[in-house]
Amino acid sequence: MSWGPENLPYGVFSRQEGQTPRVGVRYGDHVLDLAEALHDEVFATGSLNAFMSRGPAAWRATRTLIQNKLSTDRAVTEGHLVPLDQVTLHLPFEVADYVDFYCSLEHASNLGRMFRPDGEPLMPNWRHLPVGYHGRAGTVVPSGTPIVRPVGQRGAGVFGPSAKLDIEAELGFVVGVPTALGERAGRFEDHVFGVTLVNDWSARDIQAWEYVPLGPFLGKSFATSVSPWVTPLAALSEARVEGRSQDPEPPAYLSRQDPWGLDVRLEVAVNGEVVSRPPYRDMYWTPDQMLAHMTVNGASLRTGDLYASGTVSGAEQTERGSLIELSWNGTEPFKLPDGSTRSFLEDGDVVTITATAPGPGGAVISLGEVSGRIEPAR
Amino acid sequence: MSWGPENLPYGVFSRQEGQTPRVGVRYGDHVLDLAEALHDEVFATGSLNAFMSRGPAAWRATRTLIQNKLSTDRAVTEGHLVPLDQVTLHLPFEVADYVDFYCSLEHASNLGRMFRPDGEPLMPNWRHLPVGYHGRAGTVVPSGTPIVRPVGQRGAGVFGPSAKLDIEAELGFVVGVPTALGERAGRFEDHVFGVTLVNDWSARDIQAWEYVPLGPFLGKSFATSVSPWVTPLAALSEARVEGRSQDPEPPAYLSRQDPWGLDVRLEVAVNGEVVSRPPYRDMYWTPDQMLAHMTVNGASLRTGDLYASGTVSGAEQTERGSLIELSWNGTEPFKLPDGSTRSFLEDGDVVTITATAPGPGGAVISLGEVSGRIEPAR
Repeated sequence: MSWGPENLPYGVFSRQEGQTPRVGVRYGDHVLDLAEALHDEVFATGSLNAFMSRGPAAWRATRTLIQNKLSTDRAVTEGHLVPLDQVTLHLPFEVADYVDFYCSLEHASNLGRMFRPDGEPLMPNWRHLPVGYHGRAGTVVPSGTPIVRPVGQRGAGVFGPSAKLDIEAELGFVVGVPTALGERAGRFEDHVFGVTLVNDWSARDIQAWEYVPLGPFLGKSFATSVSPWVTPLAALSEARVEGRSQDPEPPAYLSRQDPWGLDVRLEVAVNGEVVSRPPYRDMYWTPDQMLAHMTVNGASLRTGDLYASGTVSGAEQTERGSLIELSWNGTEPFKLPDGSTRSFLEDGDVVTITATAPGPGGAVISLGEVSGRIEPAR
Repeated sequence: MSWGPENLPYGVFSRQEGQTPRVGVRYGDHVLDLAEALHDEVFATGSLNAFMSRGPAAWRATRTLIQNKLSTDRAVTEGHLVPLDQVTLHLPFEVADYVDFYCSLEHASNLGRMFRPDGEPLMPNWRHLPVGYHGRAGTVVPSGTPIVRPVGQRGAGVFGPSAKLDIEAELGFVVGVPTALGERAGRFEDHVFGVTLVNDWSARDIQAWEYVPLGPFLGKSFATSVSPWVTPLAALSEARVEGRSQDPEPPAYLSRQDPWGLDVRLEVAVNGEVVSRPPYRDMYWTPDQMLAHMTVNGASLRTGDLYASGTVSGAEQTERGSLIELSWNGTEPFKLPDGSTRSFLEDGDVVTITATAPGPGGAVISLGEVSGRIEPAR
């Protein structure tokens, strides 16, 4: 069962138009109303932030409490289980800062090959640190939010709707426990609450023109979609794997203490048809390394910080997590089952990213989905 | 008088340890407690955000009300004037997203000459759009916050405290009125509440190693300081000038409707000695153009968004707004009056940026100061 007691991802829902959004966990095809079931006002707020800020001991105790309630207290609990089709799901947390990394060796190499065919695919820094940059926190939106095709400059004197609208299938990490300015973060699991799916929508033509020398800006800032569920790290215990081997050995502050590679298997579907299956376990930089890097300079963390892995792309053609890679920048359009071809997204296209991970005893943990439909430029 | 009724910048203060911070305006060497003087709870919050979200009509009405109270109602008002030396000043607004632009032709050209001596100093996109990127909102700190020298990677296998710690003297623009996702912003003055001074601390060695291809990250994210006062646009009416002429003509969405160049004169002091006087009026891109660019792709605005101009540098050597320019990347150290020389900042150095602008009838508007002292790396 994908949504059993071994999973229990957290989200924010409301029952009817106008009800104040509140925190729940998904259980089967229901949402358990935690404010009611656990009599804790921290869940009556419209975001996960207050709960996430309580820290790992509270996260563990709450998970155990929910699991016990569900297994022993069904008569009571059932009154607090709301069918999924009767709820609206919201952005599960208030995003503080949003950082996007670039941690797939294959994705970075593919883009390097496309854009610098005569040079080394990877920049000199790439194997020494997890390259990243800040994105726009205010345009992180929940799954289902329509994505309006952005307009912008695509070259000198060239202005209009993006003709290269793309996706990036990513895994996002949500910070619960903050740090003070000037301090480095401690262990990954002492700060990071859980994992969410991310689609980092990208307008490649806008990005290509604007990004030197200060990085992506309007090519990314129009929208970033996240799944409605944040999967707690505890649900991923069976998915943990050693990270990919690294050469050269990273500096001490980036050395791995515990295995935080994750055997999460993503699927990217366009209009309902799977076009790619990116494997997260093959990522070069692991999320504990991203956290250590992000804070090594003393930058503080806030509850609600979101940092994403960058496009997840594996070694195979069928494992690439962006259309620019799948169509090799439009030179090799790929076929959809309805007979049409795609290099980039067309108006009306619906992109859905889902993911699963191994759970205890052969169970499969579902990480939910992040979905969005392309609306015409305004 | 620099802090007279024609100025009245907004800030957040508290009277003694433990008092809830509240909104005031600076008047002479006092702060007027607005929650008390105007009997409006919007000022009893710890940030300007709620007031800023009310919009331009409310901003105008409030300013007029304050000016009337100060001129006609002194007996009452004086009870609400708190001496500056009895208050602590806080971050004046909750920062939503922080964007940093790169709008000085001289600054961009200087950095291009230093880093790409054999190429064109400006990137091909620079004259077509205001280049910008997102910074870390969570590490925007109020003036006076100590700045811990960041550590990080400065090259392959090179790790340690930054040896090229620098400043960037900038003007920041604070958004009051938000927009919805997918919409472009309207007129500058319908969204932007006011102006603040910004020091975008920069570790040049960390930045130089990390910034390809996704832009600055840890070289900037450790701290960005802002002045405690937000000067409302209304106080700058006499400072407005036509923007610098632009070649080529920018595209329609960036065309200027009204003069939003600003004759703001900055001063940069190191340990109390002025080392530079950057003129804001010579900036190539004006703040209305930055706002139009930032939202042309449909990215939404939130109350509290801060966007900064990028380093303000003029044509003269004595008008450069960063030490990397003043010392030409360390090749021409400059002298301080105490006899010491500087290429970049040393531990214990105090950097203070101040600014003034012309006010009505020959008055001079002070924009306050943003200051910070360098602490040793941890």
